[in-house]
Amino acid sequence: MDIPARIEAAIHHAIRHGQGDTAPPRLASALEYAVTPGGARIRPTLCMGVALACGDDIPELTDTAAAALELIHCASLVHDDMPCFDNADIRRGKPTIHKAYSEPLALLAGDSLIVMGFESLALKAYLAPERALELIRILGKRTGSPYGICAGQGWESEEAVDLSAYHRAKTGALFIAATQMGAAVAGQEAGPWEELGARIGEAFQVADDLKDALCDSETLGKPAGQDVINLRPNAVSELGVEGAVLRLKDILSGAIASIPACPGEAALAQMVRKQAERLVPERVPG
Amino acid sequence: MDIPARIEAAIHHAIRHGQGDTAPPRLASALEYAVTPGGARIRPTLCMGVALACGDDIPELTDTAAAALELIHCASLVHDDMPCFDNADIRRGKPTIHKAYSEPLALLAGDSLIVMGFESLALKAYLAPERALELIRILGKRTGSPYGICAGQGWESEEAVDLSAYHRAKTGALFIAATQMGAAVAGQEAGPWEELGARIGEAFQVADDLKDALCDSETLGKPAGQDVINLRPNAVSELGVEGAVLRLKDILSGAIASIPACPGEAALAQMVRKQAERLVPERVPG
Repeated sequence: MDIPARIEAAIHHAIRHGQGDTAPPRLASALEYAVTPGGARIRPTLCMGVALACGDDIPELTDTAAAALELIHCASLVHDDMPCFDNADIRRGKPTIHKAYSEPLALLAGDSLIVMGFESLALKAYLAPERALELIRILGKRTGSPYGICAGQGWESEEAVDLSAYHRAKTGALFIAATQMGAAVAGQEAGPWEELGARIGEAFQVADDLKDALCDSETLGKPAGQDVINLRPNAVSELGVEGAVLRLKDILSGAIASIPACPGEAALAQMVRKQAERLVPERVPG
Repeated sequence: MDIPARIEAAIHHAIRHGQGDTAPPRLASALEYAVTPGGARIRPTLCMGVALACGDDIPELTDTAAAALELIHCASLVHDDMPCFDNADIRRGKPTIHKAYSEPLALLAGDSLIVMGFESLALKAYLAPERALELIRILGKRTGSPYGICAGQGWESEEAVDLSAYHRAKTGALFIAATQMGAAVAGQEAGPWEELGARIGEAFQVADDLKDALCDSETLGKPAGQDVINLRPNAVSELGVEGAVLRLKDILSGAIASIPACPGEAALAQMVRKQAERLVPERVPG
């Protein structure tokens, strides 16, 4: 199977486990709804790319790790879309969960997906217990507080924002998890892979800021201009459009240069370059 | 240290880890707020009681397991109190988190506590990797879907409710986790401990129904009469007050009878009996 097929199969394997025989039907349906259709699946793709570059010697655990990461990402989207945060009606071109189901089911689906991320790794731990534990530690650190996406989102409730901690946690955390889990699942030290994840996360944040400022809602599949409306810090307002595009290219060069030595280094660099091309918005004016 | 002191120390150890240096201050404060003052800490007490009965040979891991359970329980209280569920203003005699902080911080604090539950076990896994993995599997199963408290809460969004699955998941799940984690943390098979947890959970549900029907809000520390207001299934409306009290005593006898053979069996039976006495409301009329 190619990478996208492996990722989809692993995500749906985890979801089916959570749906079980005794699950309340609407929650079970909401779990499926929350993960389909996928977006770019960029985090699990990056995780799997790193794992392949490092040998991918236990593919079943790699699949589980990539899926766990995407389950956490989907959970964060479900919760972030809720009325008390972005109050978004549309996500990936269809109604958000609290619109399609209800607020209680959105809250519960998000909670269930978080649990599923950790549980799925523990359920496959028989394949390599120490690696599974390292995966759970990395995923926990980059999901919760103080280093994870929860902390990142928490900065939006502060009057004085530590911008570097905010960006690193809000967008960077799951990219760091992606590269580190990709290395750990193949039995490699996770530490040297933090920089690659952090830089890709930073690039993604700048690209997102550009998209939010430049694209219309139809192209985005969600409401545009939300950063200005919600007064969130934004690279475009700091650097202007051209400055932000230059910054994006700079970060991506640094990302590729930071890839640690590994058997599949060249192929991984190519993959990052390919993903990077998709990050620069098409509708840059001028 | 006695059991209550061990539990409080372990909970605050986990919370301090989540507060870290780089955590947004209001979220960090909300995490502390969510776990203090404690309620009866009945789930971690039960977990530790079972662990002690089984030998408690790695006390540091027992403390972590008991705390992880309480973190998940506190997370569920924070989310259940939110406007889209119970819309409760008061919990344990003080304003609920979404009232004292905000809805976004309540949502994030709950998410962070869930993550912290799993992460804390993985961080102590060096003490006994296989036991830590089993603890994560048990906690995951009894927190998420289809067997956990998320699924239990999810039944409240269904028109046709599977009552047995509802009660077992909504209230029973974390009691089952408590007894099973207590056994697993001491290196025992978790399976035989399910019945004790399930029965105590059932007793707790009936006791909660009695309290909700009989006590005033001041005694409860939260709004009374919520089951009738929210049309939730309730043992008192099914069996009447006297019937529900009889049922409660019946279940507790069964619970004590179900305790598997273990070195501290007698002491554990006494502990369950003592907890049970606190379950029958004082203000039974007649």
